[in-house]
Amino acid sequence: MDKVQIVEVGPRDGFQSVAPFIPTARKIAMIDALHAAGVRRIEATSFVSQSALPQLADAAQVLAAAQALPGLDPQVLVPTARHAERALEAGATHLAFVLSVSERHNRGNVRRTPAESAQEYAAIVAMLPQPARLRLNVATAFDCPHLGRIDDAATLALLDGLVATAPHAEIALCDTTGRVTPAHVERLFVAVRDRFGPDLRWAFHAHDTYGLGAANTLAAYTAGVRVFDGSVAGLGGCPFAPGATGNVATEDLVYMFDGMGIATGIDLAGLLEVAVEVVDLPGAQTGGRVRVAIAARACIAEIAA
Amino acid sequence: MDKVQIVEVGPRDGFQSVAPFIPTARKIAMIDALHAAGVRRIEATSFVSQSALPQLADAAQVLAAAQALPGLDPQVLVPTARHAERALEAGATHLAFVLSVSERHNRGNVRRTPAESAQEYAAIVAMLPQPARLRLNVATAFDCPHLGRIDDAATLALLDGLVATAPHAEIALCDTTGRVTPAHVERLFVAVRDRFGPDLRWAFHAHDTYGLGAANTLAAYTAGVRVFDGSVAGLGGCPFAPGATGNVATEDLVYMFDGMGIATGIDLAGLLEVAVEVVDLPGAQTGGRVRVAIAARACIAEIAA
Repeated sequence: MDKVQIVEVGPRDGFQSVAPFIPTARKIAMIDALHAAGVRRIEATSFVSQSALPQLADAAQVLAAAQALPGLDPQVLVPTARHAERALEAGATHLAFVLSVSERHNRGNVRRTPAESAQEYAAIVAMLPQPARLRLNVATAFDCPHLGRIDDAATLALLDGLVATAPHAEIALCDTTGRVTPAHVERLFVAVRDRFGPDLRWAFHAHDTYGLGAANTLAAYTAGVRVFDGSVAGLGGCPFAPGATGNVATEDLVYMFDGMGIATGIDLAGLLEVAVEVVDLPGAQTGGRVRVAIAARACIAEIAA
Repeated sequence: MDKVQIVEVGPRDGFQSVAPFIPTARKIAMIDALHAAGVRRIEATSFVSQSALPQLADAAQVLAAAQALPGLDPQVLVPTARHAERALEAGATHLAFVLSVSERHNRGNVRRTPAESAQEYAAIVAMLPQPARLRLNVATAFDCPHLGRIDDAATLALLDGLVATAPHAEIALCDTTGRVTPAHVERLFVAVRDRFGPDLRWAFHAHDTYGLGAANTLAAYTAGVRVFDGSVAGLGGCPFAPGATGNVATEDLVYMFDGMGIATGIDLAGLLEVAVEVVDLPGAQTGGRVRVAIAARACIAEIAA
C-alpha cells in the first residue's frame, strides 16, 4: 500500500490567522486530539515576535506539550535566525523556515529580499544541532498575489542556492495564492526532481481558494511528492482575499487518499471531531467540503432514526 | 491547443432543485447570458411530469428560446419514452436520458429496474429522428447513496447492453454522490475505452460534495474524456445531504482548464456574471470556490482604489 505523510499546519498557519486569543490549554487540547486521530507531523506553533503575532505568544508552552506526545514530530516555524535560536532553546527538534521567490512578497512578509532571507536560512542551517530536522517552505513558488505567475526558472534559480545550503532539508513548494492549476504543479515538481536528483525530499502546500486544493495535491502526488500540508477544517482563510478559502482542509486530503487506497495514518472520524471544534473557534475562517457533507449526512441519519 | 466541451446543466439539474418557481423569462435570460459567455451546450430543461416537477413546467418555452440561440446545442432530459415524444414534438434536437446502475437508486428515481429503464432507452432510440442527438447519463456509475461503492463489473455489464442499443450516443458516467476519488474515475474510464473501443464519446458528471469535483474531472480528462458537466455557481445542492455541495461549479472547471491551457470556449468573466445572479435566486443551493475568491479580490481592489 502506498502511503503519504500529512503535515497538519492548523495549529500554526491556522491559529495565526485567528484574531481572538485561543487559550493555550485549548490549543494543546487540539494538538492532543490531532495526535489521537493519528496525525504524526504538526506545525505546532511559530517562534516569532510576540508583538507582531500575539496569538502565538505561548509558543514555548505549546511546543513543550507537543514534544511530549509519543511519536509526534512537531515542527515550528521560525522567520529568522534569532527566533530559531529561541525555538532551539525551547527544545524544538524540527524547524521550518519560509522565504518567498517573489521579492515583493518576501519584503511584505519579512522586509528582506529573497537573497537576504537565503542568508538567514544559511545562518539557521549553521546553528542547527545534528539530530534536528529542517523544513524549508518556498512561498510563491508558482504564483504571487502581486506579480501573478512565477516563472519556473525563477523558482529553480532560487532553489539552486537553497538546496546547496542544506541538501538534507525537506523543501515544500507552496501555492500561496491557490491560483495554480494541476499541470503547473506537476511540471514544477518533475523539474525539481530532474534538476536536483531523486534523493531530496519535497512537499507541497496547497491552497483551496479556487477549488483546486485536492486536484493540485493529486498532481504533486503524481509527480512523486509524498508529503502534503493541510489545515484541519481548512482553518486559515486567504490573506489576499478575506472571506475566501485558504489552506486546503486536511480532512479533504485524507478523504481523497483514503478513497484511493493511499495510507495517511490518520483516522478521518477523529480528525473530523477536531474540525468541528475548530469551526467553533471565535474568529475562525474555515473551508473544506468533507466536514460539511458528512455532517449533513449524519444529520439526515439522525432524523431518519 | 487541447480543448474540452463543457455541458452547462444548471438550467435543468440546478433549477430543478430550486423550490420557488423561477419566472420563465428569468430562466431564458440566464440561458442567453450563458450563451453570450460562450457556452455552447446547455441542458436547458426537462420534459417530465409537471405535477412531479412544477419548476420545469415551462419546458417547451425554455427549449424554444434555447433553440433560437445561434450555435447553441440545447439538450433536454427525458425520463421516459412518452416524455421524449413530447420533447421531440416541442422541437428538441438533443435528448438526454438517465438511468442508474444501482437498482435501488433507479427505483427511487423512476420506479423501474435498470433493465426496465434500458428498455425505455431502447424505445427512445427507436423513435429518435435521424439528425437528433442522444446523451445517456449513467447515474451511480461509481457509487450509490444507498449501496456505497459500485463494482466496475456492474457498470460495465449494464453498459454492454446500452452501448449496443445506441452506439452513437454520448455516454456520461455520473458521480451521483460525489464520493468517488480520482483513481477510481480514471480506472473506470480507461476500462470503458478498453472495452468499447476508441470511437465512443464519453462524458463525466462530477459532484463536489467531498471537495473532489475538480480532481475527479481532471482524472477523467487524464483518461481521455473531453466532455464535462458543470452547473453554474454549483447550483443544485446535494439531494442526499441537504446543505452540502452538489454539482461541481462550471466556473471552477473553466478556471482549472484555463490555467492548464485547455480551451473551453467559455469566458470566465461572463460566466461569473451569471453565477452571481444564480446565487441570488431564492432557494438556490450553490457551491464553488472561484466565484467567492474572485468576488473577495474584487472587493479588496475596490477598497484599495
